[in-house]
Amino acid sequence: MANNTSLGPTTYRLEALTDGIFAIAMTILVLNLTIPHIAKQAAHTDLLGMLTVQTNDLFCYGLSFLLLAKFWMLHHKQFHYFKRTNSTHLWINILILMFITLIPFTSSLIALYPDLQYTNIFFHSNLFIVGALFYFDWTYATYKHRLSDPGLPKKVIWREKALCLMTPFVALCAMAFTFISPAWSPILYLATPLISVRISKK
Amino acid sequence: MANNTSLGPTTYRLEALTDGIFAIAMTILVLNLTIPHIAKQAAHTDLLGMLTVQTNDLFCYGLSFLLLAKFWMLHHKQFHYFKRTNSTHLWINILILMFITLIPFTSSLIALYPDLQYTNIFFHSNLFIVGALFYFDWTYATYKHRLSDPGLPKKVIWREKALCLMTPFVALCAMAFTFISPAWSPILYLATPLISVRISKK
Amino acid sequence: MANNTSLGPTTYRLEALTDGIFAIAMTILVLNLTIPHIAKQAAHTDLLGMLTVQTNDLFCYGLSFLLLAKFWMLHHKQFHYFKRTNSTHLWINILILMFITLIPFTSSLIALYPDLQYTNIFFHSNLFIVGALFYFDWTYATYKHRLSDPGLPKKVIWREKALCLMTPFVALCAMAFTFISPAWSPILYLATPLISVRISKK
Amino acid sequence: MANNTSLGPTTYRLEALTDGIFAIAMTILVLNLTIPHIAKQAAHTDLLGMLTVQTNDLFCYGLSFLLLAKFWMLHHKQFHYFKRTNSTHLWINILILMFITLIPFTSSLIALYPDLQYTNIFFHSNLFIVGALFYFDWTYATYKHRLSDPGLPKKVIWREKALCLMTPFVALCAMAFTFISPAWSPILYLATPLISVRISKK
Repeated sequence: MANNTSLGPTTYRLEALTDGIFAIAMTILVLNLTIPHIAKQAAHTDLLGMLTVQTNDLFCYGLSFLLLAKFWMLHHKQFHYFKRTNSTHLWINILILMFITLIPFTSSLIALYPDLQYTNIFFHSNLFIVGALFYFDWTYATYKHRLSDPGLPKKVIWREKALCLMTPFVALCAMAFTFISPAWSPILYLATPLISVRISKK
Repeated sequence: MANNTSLGPTTYRLEALTDGIFAIAMTILVLNLTIPHIAKQAAHTDLLGMLTVQTNDLFCYGLSFLLLAKFWMLHHKQFHYFKRTNSTHLWINILILMFITLIPFTSSLIALYPDLQYTNIFFHSNLFIVGALFYFDWTYATYKHRLSDPGLPKKVIWREKALCLMTPFVALCAMAFTFISPAWSPILYLATPLISVRISKK
Repeated sequence: MANNTSLGPTTYRLEALTDGIFAIAMTILVLNLTIPHIAKQAAHTDLLGMLTVQTNDLFCYGLSFLLLAKFWMLHHKQFHYFKRTNSTHLWINILILMFITLIPFTSSLIALYPDLQYTNIFFHSNLFIVGALFYFDWTYATYKHRLSDPGLPKKVIWREKALCLMTPFVALCAMAFTFISPAWSPILYLATPLISVRISKK
Repeated sequence: MANNTSLGPTTYRLEALTDGIFAIAMTILVLNLTIPHIAKQAAHTDLLGMLTVQTNDLFCYGLSFLLLAKFWMLHHKQFHYFKRTNSTHLWINILILMFITLIPFTSSLIALYPDLQYTNIFFHSNLFIVGALFYFDWTYATYKHRLSDPGLPKKVIWREKALCLMTPFVALCAMAFTFISPAWSPILYLATPLISVRISKK
């Protein structure tokens, strides 16, 4: 732990790197939207036809964007309570960022092959790992108030733990659901806001 | 609303994420500029010939860049007045960012298919939604001075509302104009600086 | 000018947007480096052969990166003297950023077609415009100490003006040089550090 | 050295540019992951088959991400000790960033051609140069406490020098190892955490 002091106690630059990586990951999702090749003579194809072709792509874009936003909000909220950082904590965060930047890739997999089971399992695993790492990060930092404000109430610690476990739990359900219908499994994530509100209310 | 305090009262990190996403959206517009395939023997093609081929691409690039810059300036100005944020306000902003990152995509649609009506309608809808969300964001935050400085004069609140509604208004006009000429409809946005100066002067 | 106060006096967020755009423009230059298609059987091609193929690409990458870095340093230095900003100043900076993000595109033009005169003229024009806008920005901000520290000595104002004009001057020389040899014209920019040191010494 | 004061004593904006470039370089690594082209009828290909195809790509992604993270941590730690900057120091950092942005390119070279000796030599050279520049940066800044806190103990200066030299040392070993097996040479970097812990303990 000799490194801790030399790495500096503030979380300022880690937040800057994290905000940068989230901003880029959220923006390059748009590169997955492929422009449909339209024959010039088909100039009067109806708007509805094009919308149908693009529906799956746009759904994956919206879902991945909102999931990334959800994780960013979680990070934002957790770091509000952290007073310091140390090298172990930095490396946990590097791992989180590594799986965050994978999301545009796994998202493009399910956008291209929505019907295959294993592309969906890749996507759900990615979200499972990110959620689990967030849980691990929060547990590590709040254990005996290692990095958090000593005045942080136990109730908040437990509520945040429950919120962290929500995404891995939904990801596991979605993985199980791929055995029934791979293409519809990502729809399960739409339940997270409801669960999230229930936990926050407690 | 129990979440509000835990999300922290400052807008600092939301501004960092927003600046990052705007910076990337503005920069990846340049990836839409396709390099013309030039035959090696055509080394003496005149500069004018190439400029003509690229005119539409460059116009879309410039227009989208300036519209993004306009929205960034609006965000910059509005957040100057906000003292706090809350979770509802954060989610409105996430939605704004989601449609901001779509602009490079809808812009590439009209760069590739400038003559089609529905590509233009997609582009105008995108700008309409962003503008409407900005109006909603400003109205939510200033309603009973929910997040803004209590000393903020009513006159400024109304002027900003008018400025927010300007882009959706021009977008609606441009959508109507696509029935006359799709290719020329984006030109209407060039009127926004004039309207904007008129509103600011009032 | 009623807008000035409402846009806020600090340059903080403009610097954040600028740093973001410079960081992305500098990084996407690397996307111009094309991976040579190597036949699997040609596994023992010598390192020298590959280096020759890539020399021009790598030269364009290095040159554009260092020119962008030079402009960033200029921005860094100028904003050190600015105490406030206003809407005109913000729009001049938006224009600077618009031509900064074009540099990866014009750079890819000369990387692909190094022997054509007009690709080189595009590249030199881009740098000429950026340099001229920097000169305009500095002149606008320091005129009657509009945005700068009143204590800023005249000597520094003139030295910075000379430094701003250096890149447009070299770009003009390079444009003239394209009539002799397009492919070698970018080499002229290597003279800028020497001129820059001479001006700074005065 | 007349420039030093005009460039400003703080390292704030250099850190912002650096964090931005690291964030983008780390995120565009994901663009190197190619989506395997899957025939629609092959819908039941096992997960294992796909994993095998992607193993090398994912290994390169993970390795490059962690190496970039390692360099970012080094930068984070070194700048914690720096109180000021000057123009020479800024240019050394610009060079570091130039070779940092090359990493996604050299990483894609070894992802595409893992078996060739010279693609691996390119990758190792890139890491060697970055590491050497970090050593040079630290030596320049701490020489007679030029930019660092005068209270910085000699022991820390030497420990950091050893940590800086570690990556160039491993890169040299990996270059030598390419003569035995190009494809396995990147594996040597996995030894760096062990060496790094040993040096930190001293």
